Amino acid sequence: MNADPKFLSASATVDAAAVTPLPNSRKVYVTGSRPDLRVPMREIQQSPTPASFGFEANPPVWVYDTSGPYTDPDLRIDIRAGLPCPRSNWIRERGDTVELAGPSSSYGQARLNDPKLAELRFDLQRRPRRAAGGRNVTQMHYARQGIVTPEMEFVAIRENLRRQEYLQNLRSAGPTGERMAALLGRQHPGQPFGAAIQHEITPEFVRDEIARGRAILPANINHPESEPMIIGRNFLVKINANIGNSAVTSSIGEEVEKMTWAIRWGGDTVMDLSTGKHIHETREWIIRNSPVPIGTVPLYQALEKVNGKAEELSWEIYRDTLIEQAEQGVDYFTIHAGVRLPFIPMTANRLTGIVSRGGSIMAKWCLAHHRESFLYTHFEEICEIMKAYDVAFSLGDGLRPGSIYDANDEAQLAELHTLGELTQIAWQHDVQTMIEGPGHVPLQLIKENMDLQLAQCHEAPFYTLGPLTTDIAPGYDHITSGIGAANIGWYGTAMLCYVTPKEHLGLPDKDDVKDGIITYKIAAHAADLAKGHPGAQIRDNALSKARFEFRWEDQFNLGLDPDKAREFHDETLPKESSKVAHFCSMCGPHFCSMKITQEVREYAAGGMQEKAVEFVRKGGELYQKA
Amino acid sequence: MNADPKFLSASATVDAAAVTPLPNSRKVYVTGSRPDLRVPMREIQQSPTPASFGFEANPPVWVYDTSGPYTDPDLRIDIRAGLPCPRSNWIRERGDTVELAGPSSSYGQARLNDPKLAELRFDLQRRPRRAAGGRNVTQMHYARQGIVTPEMEFVAIRENLRRQEYLQNLRSAGPTGERMAALLGRQHPGQPFGAAIQHEITPEFVRDEIARGRAILPANINHPESEPMIIGRNFLVKINANIGNSAVTSSIGEEVEKMTWAIRWGGDTVMDLSTGKHIHETREWIIRNSPVPIGTVPLYQALEKVNGKAEELSWEIYRDTLIEQAEQGVDYFTIHAGVRLPFIPMTANRLTGIVSRGGSIMAKWCLAHHRESFLYTHFEEICEIMKAYDVAFSLGDGLRPGSIYDANDEAQLAELHTLGELTQIAWQHDVQTMIEGPGHVPLQLIKENMDLQLAQCHEAPFYTLGPLTTDIAPGYDHITSGIGAANIGWYGTAMLCYVTPKEHLGLPDKDDVKDGIITYKIAAHAADLAKGHPGAQIRDNALSKARFEFRWEDQFNLGLDPDKAREFHDETLPKESSKVAHFCSMCGPHFCSMKITQEVREYAAGGMQEKAVEFVRKGGELYQKA
Repeated sequence: MNADPKFLSASATVDAAAVTPLPNSRKVYVTGSRPDLRVPMREIQQSPTPASFGFEANPPVWVYDTSGPYTDPDLRIDIRAGLPCPRSNWIRERGDTVELAGPSSSYGQARLNDPKLAELRFDLQRRPRRAAGGRNVTQMHYARQGIVTPEMEFVAIRENLRRQEYLQNLRSAGPTGERMAALLGRQHPGQPFGAAIQHEITPEFVRDEIARGRAILPANINHPESEPMIIGRNFLVKINANIGNSAVTSSIGEEVEKMTWAIRWGGDTVMDLSTGKHIHETREWIIRNSPVPIGTVPLYQALEKVNGKAEELSWEIYRDTLIEQAEQGVDYFTIHAGVRLPFIPMTANRLTGIVSRGGSIMAKWCLAHHRESFLYTHFEEICEIMKAYDVAFSLGDGLRPGSIYDANDEAQLAELHTLGELTQIAWQHDVQTMIEGPGHVPLQLIKENMDLQLAQCHEAPFYTLGPLTTDIAPGYDHITSGIGAANIGWYGTAMLCYVTPKEHLGLPDKDDVKDGIITYKIAAHAADLAKGHPGAQIRDNALSKARFEFRWEDQFNLGLDPDKAREFHDETLPKESSKVAHFCSMCGPHFCSMKITQEVREYAAGGMQEKAVEFVRKGGELYQKA
Repeated sequence: MNADPKFLSASATVDAAAVTPLPNSRKVYVTGSRPDLRVPMREIQQSPTPASFGFEANPPVWVYDTSGPYTDPDLRIDIRAGLPCPRSNWIRERGDTVELAGPSSSYGQARLNDPKLAELRFDLQRRPRRAAGGRNVTQMHYARQGIVTPEMEFVAIRENLRRQEYLQNLRSAGPTGERMAALLGRQHPGQPFGAAIQHEITPEFVRDEIARGRAILPANINHPESEPMIIGRNFLVKINANIGNSAVTSSIGEEVEKMTWAIRWGGDTVMDLSTGKHIHETREWIIRNSPVPIGTVPLYQALEKVNGKAEELSWEIYRDTLIEQAEQGVDYFTIHAGVRLPFIPMTANRLTGIVSRGGSIMAKWCLAHHRESFLYTHFEEICEIMKAYDVAFSLGDGLRPGSIYDANDEAQLAELHTLGELTQIAWQHDVQTMIEGPGHVPLQLIKENMDLQLAQCHEAPFYTLGPLTTDIAPGYDHITSGIGAANIGWYGTAMLCYVTPKEHLGLPDKDDVKDGIITYKIAAHAADLAKGHPGAQIRDNALSKARFEFRWEDQFNLGLDPDKAREFHDETLPKESSKVAHFCSMCGPHFCSMKITQEVREYAAGGMQEKAVEFVRKGGELYQKA
């Protein structure tokens, strides 16, 4: 029983803001090859074009939906019970896992048996699973056996967003529909820098990308609540949101709320970076209520277990932590195994030294013992653990630059090279692997990071924090880094780790989380457009059409943040009638460029084109020869 | 007398927020070759490095200062009197202008003689100037005569920011100073894409760039209050802030306040885009109180004069408006002379038609009369007016795309080609010229815009609005466009026109203006770093050093927005003592990566380096051969 009234009151129900469907939106499910394979999407309804622009129906737009069951009004949300488990059957059916009697980590057992924690503990009714003796249960392993798992089919449907069917349906609705399909479906050719962008994603393509290591599908067998998603250069660019309490502030309830808030606005994965008390219990609540993959940095918790004394860390403590977290259902682990002893002195002349927490912990350990990192020397044993639960590697960039000054330096690049070597070892074990990247990098040096990562890490997905393109704007690092993120996403980064406005200054609250998410959704979408992901432009086209036709509500609703758009509009023109008005506050009712354009179009339709051509033919050039 | 109490109470004194010097900053002046040539800069003081990091003094950092006399505590600000006039002597000395008896435009005379306007009117004590019979008073004309004007020397000093002297001074302070100079002065090589970035800007280089049309120095002879600045690809990237009331909302006082607010945060120029009542009077108040160049779109006011009926516009009305505004001191005019009759039908199949206000007004006029644009046919007469006051052209992109869909289309590129032709005509008259650019452009198509502009407009400075890299984020278009702005600035755009969060939704208030400005300062600085502007990285290096050494106050003060940085920090750790604490809210006092790095550094200094090298030599590679 979770009977702590203080905790329960904050979290037994999710805050209303997280469970209300977005305006004019409804949750729809596309069913795959089996009835229990239901892929969620969000359908945004539109109003018809006003008569003055020539009445026509505007089809709903389908968008990628990370918000999970929270925005499905047919489901009852009770965070004490956790989310439904769409993957349970799939995992069981494979017949390669066993249910354990209970947690097999010492720490997990101790926490379970500690009566003082009863009131904080999530009341999990099932027991953890693990691969049956010696089996490998990773999606990469299945992929390499030629097996298309339900998870792979799920992400194929999810990535396609029913686009071809959508345009086909429009086309089959007669000439108007054909025009609409041509208009909404039109897209500029992309510059994918060598990415293998597909016209349509097939389950077989998903399998092949996972098999060759170019994509990962984070899907711990102990996180059956998750809705499968994929991270790879040939798929939509994803974003991660970091949450987590610290020794200084915030509670379990707040962190669960930040998670539901982050996925409402588009977080594709969430990392729980808690460093404070009750890390284990906080994590359990988050995972049981998360439809997106959860990542962690196990080293943070291991450090807590030795009271913050890095030199007291050991492989045994770390190993127990990996098993503890793997059995809770963490989908990917950041592991800083590339912070090797010989690289540490390379950081001595840096302006900002080692800024990665994980990196600095390991550096301290290495120096204290004057030994090679236990993460590096025990890497194959780590692989054995990862493949027993299907936890993916996120090979951490512990030596990433913490300032423009330190960008692309010897230490950073030495570590990157090592991460490439470790990737090949992980792949020998069929363990899914992505590579973390910087950090602080000026614009002109970003592409070098991507090119080196692709070459040295054999096209394993890149997962970068920003990068921040300048250091001079504390308070606005969502923007300094959003610029870098859009660029590196374009060049090929598969997932962008968000940065909030509070970066370097404080812990993000819900507003900061939202600002970070929306900024990174913008960066990811700008990158998708730039790479030429098919159909990426549909939403832009639909929104611009709504804007041009003064369909204010549709313009708000098709945007990434309908609430903010409406609020801004209402600050100047609060009346409901303004939302159907054919003018806006920028120009006022007297003059409007969009209105004039409409007149131009009507005029042009009346034979104007021929007259203008004639004008040109007759030598209407006044200055051409000047 | 400006006796309207409502107006006066709002504006007789600028709001306190605009006249308080920024924290730990003082206004300094670098004197040039004559005593009345005093170039303002902002000096940010720093505290010493704490003893635990090895005590050392940290030199103040000098930054570009657009805020004018408002942040000089030695000057008394009275917006009824206007600002001091640093350029008056220089203009008079040249002896090529005459003082007029009064405004020579009919409209200017009518407004001056309308008793109903007495209470709104700025009480200007001097009379307008104009070139003496047939003289050409543009900075380009002087430059082409080989004359280095005080304005040119001013901008050379301003662009250099005393960087060489700064580093030289440090170096001469012994070994510690030498280390500091090496550290602060270190910078990554840039990728300037063909820009002629100078190690140090000389007055002669400024003259040469203006003479060949690669830069403009907007400096109307009737705006002696302005502090000269330069816009060109081989100088620091500049930003513009748009303000202006509309028929729907806002007053004169509010617009003046927005201007002082915009320059406080870094606006290099301000465009007054007012479309409502009292445009003439609003503009006068703004110019008299503006130390930065002011731009306008004269067509907006001309349209007001014909009650919003575009078809009633005429060359005569427009011409009178140009003279009216030139005599008030507007420094550059956006003129949409490239919206030619034959291009208009090219917009008929666009998704969002013509979104430029100026473009759509001219399109409507052309169609209504079925004639070529009077801006195009009278272009040489416009040049005659421009050169009599030194108003610079900002050749407007009236056919810019208003959506991703319409980016880089036939209409846009046809207009760009025409702007190139017009540039050459303007240059035949020695009229300074820059070219406006889009708009909405996906990332992969931005460089094409820059390359075509450089080729077709003969390297005249490019001045772009964003571009927005996606349409799907109304409410966040400062960010969608900040991404595009950083990129196009890197590729060579000389000035970036800001976009606020309210774009497409409403009129920006002061918060929006600040958000727009800071976002664009970030974009411009990211571009400066990427191009490799010498010394651009000093501020990044100084701030990162402060961050690493836990000098919280210095970190705030060296940032673009010290107020916001402090506010964010204080939300989590409000106590004053936290600002000297060697930890922050992200990790808490128990564990801190920066602290560990410090220990690493101390350890490494103790012979660690040799040991590590030895380790590598002995074959410490565990997985290298895997």
